[in-house]
Amino acid sequence: MTDLSSDSTKIAGVVDVIRTKRDGGRLSDAQIDWTIAAYTRGEIADEQMSALAMAILLRGMDTAEIARWTAAMIASGERLDLSGVARPTVDKHSTGGVGDKITLPLTPLVAACGAAVPQLSGRGLGHTGGTLDKLESIPGWRADLTNARFVDQLRDVGAVICAAGDGLAPADRKLYALRDVTGTVEAIPLIASSIMSKKIAEGTGALVLDVKVGSGAFMASVADARQLARTMVDLGTAHGVRTVALLTDMSTPLGRAVGNAVEVTEAVEVLAGGGPADVVDLTLALAREMLAAAGLPDADPAAALRDGRAMDTWRAMIAAQGGNPHAPLPVAAETELVRADRDGYVAAVDARAIGVAAWRLGAGRARKEDPVSAAAGVILHRRPGEQVRAGDPLVELRADDPDRIADVLPALSGGFGPTDPVQLTDAPPAATELVVDRIA
Amino acid sequence: MTDLSSDSTKIAGVVDVIRTKRDGGRLSDAQIDWTIAAYTRGEIADEQMSALAMAILLRGMDTAEIARWTAAMIASGERLDLSGVARPTVDKHSTGGVGDKITLPLTPLVAACGAAVPQLSGRGLGHTGGTLDKLESIPGWRADLTNARFVDQLRDVGAVICAAGDGLAPADRKLYALRDVTGTVEAIPLIASSIMSKKIAEGTGALVLDVKVGSGAFMASVADARQLARTMVDLGTAHGVRTVALLTDMSTPLGRAVGNAVEVTEAVEVLAGGGPADVVDLTLALAREMLAAAGLPDADPAAALRDGRAMDTWRAMIAAQGGNPHAPLPVAAETELVRADRDGYVAAVDARAIGVAAWRLGAGRARKEDPVSAAAGVILHRRPGEQVRAGDPLVELRADDPDRIADVLPALSGGFGPTDPVQLTDAPPAATELVVDRIA
Repeated sequence: MTDLSSDSTKIAGVVDVIRTKRDGGRLSDAQIDWTIAAYTRGEIADEQMSALAMAILLRGMDTAEIARWTAAMIASGERLDLSGVARPTVDKHSTGGVGDKITLPLTPLVAACGAAVPQLSGRGLGHTGGTLDKLESIPGWRADLTNARFVDQLRDVGAVICAAGDGLAPADRKLYALRDVTGTVEAIPLIASSIMSKKIAEGTGALVLDVKVGSGAFMASVADARQLARTMVDLGTAHGVRTVALLTDMSTPLGRAVGNAVEVTEAVEVLAGGGPADVVDLTLALAREMLAAAGLPDADPAAALRDGRAMDTWRAMIAAQGGNPHAPLPVAAETELVRADRDGYVAAVDARAIGVAAWRLGAGRARKEDPVSAAAGVILHRRPGEQVRAGDPLVELRADDPDRIADVLPALSGGFGPTDPVQLTDAPPAATELVVDRIA
Repeated sequence: MTDLSSDSTKIAGVVDVIRTKRDGGRLSDAQIDWTIAAYTRGEIADEQMSALAMAILLRGMDTAEIARWTAAMIASGERLDLSGVARPTVDKHSTGGVGDKITLPLTPLVAACGAAVPQLSGRGLGHTGGTLDKLESIPGWRADLTNARFVDQLRDVGAVICAAGDGLAPADRKLYALRDVTGTVEAIPLIASSIMSKKIAEGTGALVLDVKVGSGAFMASVADARQLARTMVDLGTAHGVRTVALLTDMSTPLGRAVGNAVEVTEAVEVLAGGGPADVVDLTLALAREMLAAAGLPDADPAAALRDGRAMDTWRAMIAAQGGNPHAPLPVAAETELVRADRDGYVAAVDARAIGVAAWRLGAGRARKEDPVSAAAGVILHRRPGEQVRAGDPLVELRADDPDRIADVLPALSGGFGPTDPVQLTDAPPAATELVVDRIA
């Protein structure tokens, strides 16, 4: 039905926008600006925006549309000014993976090397964990800072990991929650604009993107991940943010720990100079990119891990937000070991299956208002490439409640064949590359 | 994000359904049954259903999916039992056009020939008018009947035109309102299931569909209209309703009157044995189809128009719902004539442009809570094929308020060239067929 009457400008406007995209057309700058502003003000209803999001998912957006959509989301709120921070600012964003605790050691490490890292993070939803949920397992630590305290801590400590304030890209905040319940998450234009609007509004001078690819990531194919990375790099560059992306493998969980407190423990091991090789390698690879983007190409992050400077900054960062970096972390009441049924090698550990298991054990939430368990999670006693003997522990499940373990156990203990989450083979598997590509 | 936890069955369920259709899959019977029932109960939110509707619009549904979707919408409410009506029941549905007052003479005409016509109608939204809005211009006439009074009038008079009760296909009622504001009206599976769920739930034994095609219809192409007609005929047949469809032209308004009271006046002219030829022809074509579908192939509707039986039934039908069939109808306070600027022939009158004009003059509504003007509308002084001289009136605009006329006038009086709503040519145009196709 045609909506042309002067009484119905609002409905006519948004239905016209939806139809334009639905029929494969491109949205004009004016349509995009009006749509984002009207949605932020509540003049466009959620049911209208979700129909538009589905049309965007299925019809796509061109480069100019994505750029304008992102700019409109930035303009929906405030943009922080970090010019008062003397050091160069550089941030990192991961598109989300299983066991991805890299932000925890990386932020203080890069700060210890001379940059300032304004890391605004989120909470987990679904099978990928959230950095804030992990840090909240540290007694006393608080995620919420005012803008003024955020800038102060960035200047004084050089490292902040905290929740994004309500004032940054409020359009994205509404749209992100809507997409999650309407099957419209997996659209490259919407993912790219969501990430980049927040990062650009946050005021960072440089940005390194860790775009995950594989079963545990939103982007299962390298081609999709590369397109997402290219889209985001172009958006950052267009807004004056020096932006680089690494495509990294997320077919296997990162490290040995998946959960909240267990990932903090693993992050502290890395800061102490130990930790799983893949976590150390990715932390250093991202640190080198961040330091180069911040104009500090000669900094030596490996040395900062070895000599304790990164650990000192970690402790200062945790303490500045009320946390006790020396306090013991919560321990799960219930544990269960899944053991190998024969000798061989671990050929694969499926990131998605482990992520879903950790989530169902209590480490993640199904709805954004759900609480998470600090102690629940999964420990990988063996990672791909490692040898096992029959009876050796492969996977350890941890939960506050035995029912959660009973719920998850069948999926992981059913067998170790080529379609199971944990695969055992007679011969050692070929080694895989952690960093798949780099896009600048 | 994966939603598999037992806490989130509802979200997981609907997001899974949305994703299945989004990615081009087919919905299972169980998914469809659950989706319609949960949406009716309010467990699926509007923003989720609109995303699904957009995915259905862009990805389509196969025959079995449409049949199940329709059955689930019927099952969301009550299904009337018209077995107590001694005569065979037969209904008509038009997909909506400009000047389409055919229901008004057709319903009493078919009843006068021996069938019972249970005509549940709707109100207009957008540029196509609503039968109930038209009848409400008759002083005293009421659209709302209880189910019991509906069945009584059907038995006693043989003809009822009234509003559908809340109990019939409540899922469709919700979904229809949602589609209207989310750009998801023009999906054949959703149009077909919406129409047929209401008609099947209403309990009619036979049904004739008037599927409009052309600028004034939802379906602009014959191919789309034919697919919609075929889908609906198959749905009716599968539910035991003898169903036939005519594809009829809606590039030109039907008759000379477009509005509410003005269309009632024209309908009464037809019942009195006069009226525009196209309105008479289509009324008789549909009456013959309805009577044949009702098992009365030998009835003679042309005779029932000539001898006054159809008019008698009209008067009884209007009076049974409180209306005074002899009362004068509202007259517009403001009128304006658009005149020909040269000699020639009317080659075309664009249905959509006239529909939009009538709507903006006050005959239609932009939102479902808006009132309509009984007297506003457009009168076509010349129809396509008719000759004119410079200065002859072509179109008459009627409104309660001169501002409405000033608003609409420029669109209709700008010129009469090949891209204008009213086109004049030197030579008479070729005649067009009103009935384009028949699908049984």
